[in-house]
Amino acid sequence: PTSVRLAVIPGDGIGPEVVNEGLKVLNAAVGNEVSFETTEYDLGARLWHKTGETLPDSVLAEIRQHDVILLGAIGDPGVPSGVLERGLLLRLRFTLDHYVNLRPARLYPGVTSPLAPHVLENGLDFVVVREGTEGPYVGNGGAVRTGTPHEIATEVSVNTAFGIDRVVRDAFRRAAARPRKHLTLVHKHNVLTHAGHLWRRTVEAVNAEFPDVTTDYLHVDAATIFMVQNPGRFDVIVTDNLFGDIITDIAGAIAGGIGLAASGNINPDRSAAPSMFEPVHGSAPDIAGQGKADPTATVLSVGMLLEHIGLDKAAQKVEQAVAEDLAARGDRVRTTSEIGEAIASRLA
Amino acid sequence: PTSVRLAVIPGDGIGPEVVNEGLKVLNAAVGNEVSFETTEYDLGARLWHKTGETLPDSVLAEIRQHDVILLGAIGDPGVPSGVLERGLLLRLRFTLDHYVNLRPARLYPGVTSPLAPHVLENGLDFVVVREGTEGPYVGNGGAVRTGTPHEIATEVSVNTAFGIDRVVRDAFRRAAARPRKHLTLVHKHNVLTHAGHLWRRTVEAVNAEFPDVTTDYLHVDAATIFMVQNPGRFDVIVTDNLFGDIITDIAGAIAGGIGLAASGNINPDRSAAPSMFEPVHGSAPDIAGQGKADPTATVLSVGMLLEHIGLDKAAQKVEQAVAEDLAARGDRVRTTSEIGEAIASRLA
Ligand SMILES: CC(C)[C@H](C(=O)O)[C@@H](O)C(=O)O
Ligand SMILES: CC(C)[C@H](C(=O)O)[C@@H](O)C(=O)O
Repeated sequence: PTSVRLAVIPGDGIGPEVVNEGLKVLNAAVGNEVSFETTEYDLGARLWHKTGETLPDSVLAEIRQHDVILLGAIGDPGVPSGVLERGLLLRLRFTLDHYVNLRPARLYPGVTSPLAPHVLENGLDFVVVREGTEGPYVGNGGAVRTGTPHEIATEVSVNTAFGIDRVVRDAFRRAAARPRKHLTLVHKHNVLTHAGHLWRRTVEAVNAEFPDVTTDYLHVDAATIFMVQNPGRFDVIVTDNLFGDIITDIAGAIAGGIGLAASGNINPDRSAAPSMFEPVHGSAPDIAGQGKADPTATVLSVGMLLEHIGLDKAAQKVEQAVAEDLAARGDRVRTTSEIGEAIASRLA
Repeated sequence: PTSVRLAVIPGDGIGPEVVNEGLKVLNAAVGNEVSFETTEYDLGARLWHKTGETLPDSVLAEIRQHDVILLGAIGDPGVPSGVLERGLLLRLRFTLDHYVNLRPARLYPGVTSPLAPHVLENGLDFVVVREGTEGPYVGNGGAVRTGTPHEIATEVSVNTAFGIDRVVRDAFRRAAARPRKHLTLVHKHNVLTHAGHLWRRTVEAVNAEFPDVTTDYLHVDAATIFMVQNPGRFDVIVTDNLFGDIITDIAGAIAGGIGLAASGNINPDRSAAPSMFEPVHGSAPDIAGQGKADPTATVLSVGMLLEHIGLDKAAQKVEQAVAEDLAARGDRVRTTSEIGEAIASRLA
């Protein structure tokens, strides 16, 4: 059997609970086909409180030696906002060059959307390719005269032709492989003219290499309107790091809630660095440790992980098991592990 | 009768059509109480095509001499994206120091929301105070090696204690005057740490002066989830220029469509500069000149305009007439001017 080195970062809040179920399903899905060598890394609030560290270089170097990473959630009310996000989560995404932040949105049968039926007539099945290593997320900001009435704080969005070209290409490839073959660029080039026009020109240029793919453009504000008025119009969306953050949360919400939204932080060059799969939701400290979290987003992220390492059949089985579980779910209230067990048992 | 100097900028696309109806309603609402001295300014695509100018200094100086401005919509597919937006619309907002971009969202009886009834149980009646003169909108970006594979484009978000303090104060004042007295700060301080923490600290500091107002904080991505899952949780929202742009479009969509969303670009110091009222929607070139545009957003903006210049009774009458028209609207398809006439006739 193939052996896969898996780094697991359960993280904060509900992270450990949902990761636990994700691993159950992972094991059930692959059977004896593959053996996973799993190393767990205790990163997050606990480590920071103990040592003041978020991601020691030595740990990062170790994590790098793995084939793939599963992450639960990062963030804790006891840690100043931004410390774990920037020092751990974004550090992983940036250092491992996860430039494709992939976030599918699909309304599974049996799932209730907050949208009215009349706006769902064209269905809801799209995927967002969010750039993961540039834009306003680069951490290139600062402040002067902090704490005085003369304070000035800046945040610099950095965008490169190199960085945009590679993620746009990835999005075109994904669009070309889908039945509708449609790609929507979301940005705000009427205001953020420099970055926006670089995105626009890049999409136009790469489109020449994918003549089968039709494209359109929406300002981010207009895109959010379509999200609630006609999400069926979307097939593949490509967008910047911050706009992608926002629209994938709306996408999760309209597809039945952030408890179902999966994501992959992908470096398409598997030999360059391990990719990292994680639910879109956060650490939800208010419900941590109570068995109330829905592990489905993590389970679907495990499905994406399996696909990334080439185990397509296992990946499909996981998605199928989730779809069946959702269809049978109804109004029942189940614990985190009951949901995990139910999905895993469909794979047995 | 008082005399009010009103500058009207019909603008592009459907702008002139909706402004026309807005003025009908304005005249019907004020009767002989007030006389409006109206000057119309032909700014937008037409002027740019003719002269290459967006807002000549002399015109800006003239507009400044007015008490208040009514604007239709700016933007045209024949003009490079950003030229009219930055050169005209944003130039007006920035030069006239419209730091309070006020955008109410309310679901009127008779209006169909794209949200399912179960998420509307707590109603939908909030107001967004969007900062209007700072943030990523300052135009402080640039590009090097443009058009080459080594292009780098930046966009700088500039945020000042001065600019945030004044808009946060305005938002607290509005929250204090509402029954629920609740203010939500929307930002992304776990990633945009410098700007975000400046906003957070400012809200905390000003809160001490408004002890009756309760506050909470949401990351912009989480805020969009609540917009579709429980918009009733919002009372007053205060946020940055770009986040405000995005969430007010979602707000418009969930409240029945952007055709109903009004806004004011307000400089609260009426002696410093005229404020400007405009529908949130754009110029919609695809339906321009066809009498298909809904003028209601402009009419409601006229209501806000009347309130701003102290004509509270006329303002209330306009909102009341719109509410009655919406309640009676049903599925009928009416032209732009039929809707305008219907609202105006309720004021007679
Ligand atoms: C926790 C936070 C830094 C992160 C982001 O903004 O990317 C999260 O919201 C996400 O979408 O994965
Ligand atoms: C046209 C555009 C510049 C403008 C903005 O982004 O502010 C519009 O979207 C709005 O919300 O008024």
